[in-house]
Amino acid sequence: MKLVRFGEIQREKPGVIDATGVLRDASSIIDKWSGNALDDDSLARVRAAMEELPIVDSSPRLGAPVCDVGKVVGIGLNYRAHAAEAGLDVPIDPIIFLMAPTAINGPTDDIILPRGSVNTDWEVELAVIIGKGGAYIAPEDALSHVAGYCVANDVTERDYQLNRGTQWTKGKSADTFLPLGPILVTRDEVPDPQNLHLELFLNGELQQRGHSADMIFTVAELISRVSEYMSWQPGDVMITGTPPGVGLGMSPPQFLRDGDMLCLRINNFGEQCARVRAAQ
Amino acid sequence: MKLVRFGEIQREKPGVIDATGVLRDASSIIDKWSGNALDDDSLARVRAAMEELPIVDSSPRLGAPVCDVGKVVGIGLNYRAHAAEAGLDVPIDPIIFLMAPTAINGPTDDIILPRGSVNTDWEVELAVIIGKGGAYIAPEDALSHVAGYCVANDVTERDYQLNRGTQWTKGKSADTFLPLGPILVTRDEVPDPQNLHLELFLNGELQQRGHSADMIFTVAELISRVSEYMSWQPGDVMITGTPPGVGLGMSPPQFLRDGDMLCLRINNFGEQCARVRAAQ
Repeated sequence: MKLVRFGEIQREKPGVIDATGVLRDASSIIDKWSGNALDDDSLARVRAAMEELPIVDSSPRLGAPVCDVGKVVGIGLNYRAHAAEAGLDVPIDPIIFLMAPTAINGPTDDIILPRGSVNTDWEVELAVIIGKGGAYIAPEDALSHVAGYCVANDVTERDYQLNRGTQWTKGKSADTFLPLGPILVTRDEVPDPQNLHLELFLNGELQQRGHSADMIFTVAELISRVSEYMSWQPGDVMITGTPPGVGLGMSPPQFLRDGDMLCLRINNFGEQCARVRAAQ
Repeated sequence: MKLVRFGEIQREKPGVIDATGVLRDASSIIDKWSGNALDDDSLARVRAAMEELPIVDSSPRLGAPVCDVGKVVGIGLNYRAHAAEAGLDVPIDPIIFLMAPTAINGPTDDIILPRGSVNTDWEVELAVIIGKGGAYIAPEDALSHVAGYCVANDVTERDYQLNRGTQWTKGKSADTFLPLGPILVTRDEVPDPQNLHLELFLNGELQQRGHSADMIFTVAELISRVSEYMSWQPGDVMITGTPPGVGLGMSPPQFLRDGDMLCLRINNFGEQCARVRAAQ
């Protein structure tokens, strides 16, 4: 199943895209795509009622496909080729960091460069949305905790991330720095999260191309390892690291400018295209 | 005004403690102490209705005084004497990190040591609860964004924090690692947040004693500086660093064990006493 949130910003409704590609309004069954609405039972109810859900005739704006996110866990340096690009050793334990949920942005909404920023970079990533919470989750059980997957851009201000102390928080949590979506693809339609193609285009030019088989820690391992440090809750989001091709890795480094257009793709998860704007 | 949440875990109601020390049930006016319920207008309504609010006769459990927290911002090394204790330079820019909101714990609820943890430490801190959101907030306006203050324990697993990569997340976000409360004291009763005494006792023995005048960055400066990196929302929490006396700074270092009792105090914010337990 493909989940979306549609409508004006802050007033989105929960929707589903049916097998024929038609958007349907799920708000008669689901209040919003968050928390327990993402568990297996809730998704099964929507699936069963699909054909009765009203069709949305217009082509509304889509928001991030989840809302009221309790926490966003980021994973650093999780692609072998990106670690090589960054000149860093492959981590022996996953690099875990947190992002402010206020960074979440709609897939076509402007990405705003912070005031004075001249070092903001892109990172296409596979986002995992948790459907069932838990702690100390075994790797072999981990994928059953997934509601689904979507495209994420882990936008990062490199100067703030790397040159203002050891913690990455300053560079990772600006408002609009985490575009998600457009589509949350439920896990039954993603038989193997380690078999996904990721691409990012800047102004039409391919910058990042990767494959999730290159992940150092698999999605299942990451869900398990993070759950040793904190519990997962339904609706939590994990972004799983980026393949090579970020601006910092170029010679000379290249960063985002007002007016740039970023387009990201992962398999059939829908294209995420957003304009970059300087803060007012 | 003094705000509390009272009742069974996960089923707390919003309450206020009146000028005579009596607990009153505010649930006829306020749904829960979170988000916009913490803004000035909402607090004024509760204050005006105080004498009509029903008295709570029992002595119920108190939970953390805020819920549905969107983000928890931590500040590292913000007391001169603690930086000296840790053998680290005074930061020139605040050290900002994020904690999972799932770490928030009631003030008397057990603190659970993660499985296998032998290096969990204590940190008494002043917590600031945001009442009015914003970005790029000027320092001179910053305190008007505060709903109030409470006691926090920034419980930290030092091995996870310092020896498993550069990011502190693993050591800061375990469930139960952020006891808050018991009382949220609204800002009108805290004329100067830089004039507060902080103390922490382990099994009755004083371990930490500090004064918020020793902060490197004041509360107002911190609210302002963080707001350059991400927007504040009503109900967000910031913990502002710890004075000296943590277990890591002892010779030899001393850490928490199953059965330990921690008691924390800041002025008239109520005593926070919690038992430490090993995970099952």
